[in-house]
Amino acid sequence: MNIGIIGIGLIGSSLARAFRLHKLGDILIHDFKREHLEEARRLELGTRYFDDAQKLAAEADIIFVCVPVGNIVDVVRGICPRLKKGTIITDVGSVKSSITRQIREFLPRDSFFVPGHPISGSEFSGPAAGQADLFANRPYVLIDGEGYKAATAKIANIAAKIGANVLYLDADCHDQILAFTSHLPHICAFAAMAGSEQASQLAQQDVMSYAGPSFRDLTRVAAASVDMWKDIFLYNRQHVLEVYKLFRQEMDRLVSFIERAETGEIERYIAHARELRCFYYDNRGELSAKKSEKN
Amino acid sequence: MNIGIIGIGLIGSSLARAFRLHKLGDILIHDFKREHLEEARRLELGTRYFDDAQKLAAEADIIFVCVPVGNIVDVVRGICPRLKKGTIITDVGSVKSSITRQIREFLPRDSFFVPGHPISGSEFSGPAAGQADLFANRPYVLIDGEGYKAATAKIANIAAKIGANVLYLDADCHDQILAFTSHLPHICAFAAMAGSEQASQLAQQDVMSYAGPSFRDLTRVAAASVDMWKDIFLYNRQHVLEVYKLFRQEMDRLVSFIERAETGEIERYIAHARELRCFYYDNRGELSAKKSEKN
Repeated sequence: MNIGIIGIGLIGSSLARAFRLHKLGDILIHDFKREHLEEARRLELGTRYFDDAQKLAAEADIIFVCVPVGNIVDVVRGICPRLKKGTIITDVGSVKSSITRQIREFLPRDSFFVPGHPISGSEFSGPAAGQADLFANRPYVLIDGEGYKAATAKIANIAAKIGANVLYLDADCHDQILAFTSHLPHICAFAAMAGSEQASQLAQQDVMSYAGPSFRDLTRVAAASVDMWKDIFLYNRQHVLEVYKLFRQEMDRLVSFIERAETGEIERYIAHARELRCFYYDNRGELSAKKSEKN
Repeated sequence: MNIGIIGIGLIGSSLARAFRLHKLGDILIHDFKREHLEEARRLELGTRYFDDAQKLAAEADIIFVCVPVGNIVDVVRGICPRLKKGTIITDVGSVKSSITRQIREFLPRDSFFVPGHPISGSEFSGPAAGQADLFANRPYVLIDGEGYKAATAKIANIAAKIGANVLYLDADCHDQILAFTSHLPHICAFAAMAGSEQASQLAQQDVMSYAGPSFRDLTRVAAASVDMWKDIFLYNRQHVLEVYKLFRQEMDRLVSFIERAETGEIERYIAHARELRCFYYDNRGELSAKKSEKN
């Protein structure tokens, strides 16, 4: 089996490493950035390297499109003319609705698009940042849909082989959930990091000299890729606005208890949040197996 | 030298371990919770154990008060009658102004209070959670002030011996800075964790099944002690409200760019936040040495 990877950044290069580790087939790699392609070659991430996405498309049975959300549709449009009959295309983008709708409109009838989203990652990027175990025990969402059950099963099979837990959602539900669990934490991180300058002005001291572990963890993902996050916010605008409203109300509620010095309410609020955190996560900070009991 | 520790939770037990490791003297331990005191004894954290804080006070040269912010003043008031001449009392509370003011009012003239705050910790608590290296390379703030320079120097010396970086601030400035770098991240964590229930209702799915590393890190400190955080929010109310306003404006600004799909502004906002994060933290997520260049 020829597995194509277009875009050899953090996710693409992690998939390449995982596919090689689990001997899933020949790995064909393309990246429009010449230096990324060269680095992939130097790191021996693939079987063959292509400086042209169409040439890769002409030989691949399955293609993982691992480019930023804003480029996925154009990349797929670009390779359409050269796809073999029966080729399955999947992506790894963090937003699914609009991309799925657009690609399904123009994709040839004898090809398949299976929207995917491995929920793993880090704040790093580039071919050297990948890890073969990035997907192990992590959720890998595939988008439900009529007319491509067999294609979906194939991608699910690959995701399971590299250790991921495959979950199914419809595209809009995925985008709503991820707006809360992923896009919102990034807004917090960017805003806290940017706000540190004003906080320093207020205190007439560099507040960052006094930052502890809680600030470090809150802002970890502020180091993430600018291109990628600009796209995600734009493509998932409505859901991001919706969950931001929800989150702001939650914060306002806690802060209004603090403002009015309502000891009992503060205690109840914190205790409830603490209970949820301890229910869902174990001591090592990993999602706990207990969560399945609650479902 | 007899070093007393009142309150053998995370910070108290970490100090005990660090003092023993660095052979700083005999370690006298009291905790009003009988089970904590027994656990400290079982873990061999101290030299001697006291079921009465006054008895400990009568023998200590230096006393670290490591109880929640809301109990510090009462604990110090309670041991006052039994203090030896020249005893230095220090605390490790996360809020300094009001406690410092109150204690200085009633403390006997021949004793000294040096307000302190080691900026380290974790979401865990109790005598078993402590670590001897909890303070290594971490900031340890001491509050500036006239009339107790020699006492401050002694505490600074101990903090340096256990590996901490001693920094000096006045009490109000400390409380303002920590409101931003520590109390605010906790508000985010509690609100995000509590908000997950509403997000699940909205999505009609348990959103926590799809939580990735960014949500995990944002909410890590939601597992922190309820008692401790209730006190911190109440004692630092004004500064917490002030920095929350600042943070909310920052988030609103980013989200309004998203709402209006202002691509350039979103990019600039994220790029600036990213630049700050990468300036202050190295690749391992530790505060970078570079920050000193900026000062």
